[in-house]
Amino acid sequence: MRVLGIDPGLRNMGWGVIAVDGPRLRHVANGVIRTSGSSDSGDLAARLLVLFQGLSAVISEYGPDVAAVEQTFVNKDAVGTLKLGQARGIALLAPAAAGITVGEYAPNAVKKTVVGVGHAAKEQVQHMVRVQLPGVQFDGPDSADALAIAICHAHHLQGRALRVATMRQGVA
Amino acid sequence: MRVLGIDPGLRNMGWGVIAVDGPRLRHVANGVIRTSGSSDSGDLAARLLVLFQGLSAVISEYGPDVAAVEQTFVNKDAVGTLKLGQARGIALLAPAAAGITVGEYAPNAVKKTVVGVGHAAKEQVQHMVRVQLPGVQFDGPDSADALAIAICHAHHLQGRALRVATMRQGVA
Repeated sequence: MRVLGIDPGLRNMGWGVIAVDGPRLRHVANGVIRTSGSSDSGDLAARLLVLFQGLSAVISEYGPDVAAVEQTFVNKDAVGTLKLGQARGIALLAPAAAGITVGEYAPNAVKKTVVGVGHAAKEQVQHMVRVQLPGVQFDGPDSADALAIAICHAHHLQGRALRVATMRQGVA
Repeated sequence: MRVLGIDPGLRNMGWGVIAVDGPRLRHVANGVIRTSGSSDSGDLAARLLVLFQGLSAVISEYGPDVAAVEQTFVNKDAVGTLKLGQARGIALLAPAAAGITVGEYAPNAVKKTVVGVGHAAKEQVQHMVRVQLPGVQFDGPDSADALAIAICHAHHLQGRALRVATMRQGVA
């Protein structure tokens, strides 16, 4: 099973794909879709289109079975929140348009799953992504965060599968 | 030339298509794309997909040449702003994905163009939409607002065309 993680942003949309092979996680690919230019008027629609086409191309190339997007913390100013919302709409739409279910995780839940504590620094997240995905290389924090979200989703899906298996054994 | 106006919202996405025939405006169609259900987790992606597919179907059916979306006023709470941002991202993406340029207008600019004052009540906007599009029928404020946005965009495009024509005459 392949998991796509997305760290939404209007300027930089991070993405990461991992493969879940039993209890093991393996890195498949990661990157950042960048949109340049100002965020005024007609330009904005064009930037959202770049994000949508970029994510759709990633989905088409790496064929993830499930996806997860970071649940935005609303601690920015209102204008920033609106911009982030617009980018986040695209991050949720692209997998849904490809028929893929999308999970959502709060940043603290991602950090707790990947690092063990909810208030980990970016460096700790990047370190644990490297530990859990041996050989992984990433450009910066956006793709590292996206891989962390994918790892978080994989752990949650594994946990659920484990619980279902345990229940079945209990019944048998 | 046909103009699509969109009043973005996660629960109710209003749309309206008008035809510009010289100085005359004519109503073509209007409606509201509704998404039900709660806004939690996986559900949100499905709702955004309903909005995207609905708008794409409208564009495909009525073939607008240009589109305009209401520029959101950030006077809501942060959670509401984020939700609106997500819906607004879809409203901007759908025309862009169909190769249509998208204008943006602040609510006050729309009211000023359609009613004559920037702080008009909803009833005034609906009245003037009826006056400017004889025979139009709409369900409620969402599609009326969308038609008002389309009228605003049409007036701006006509004004620009008029200015260009005047400049050419000045040169000739």
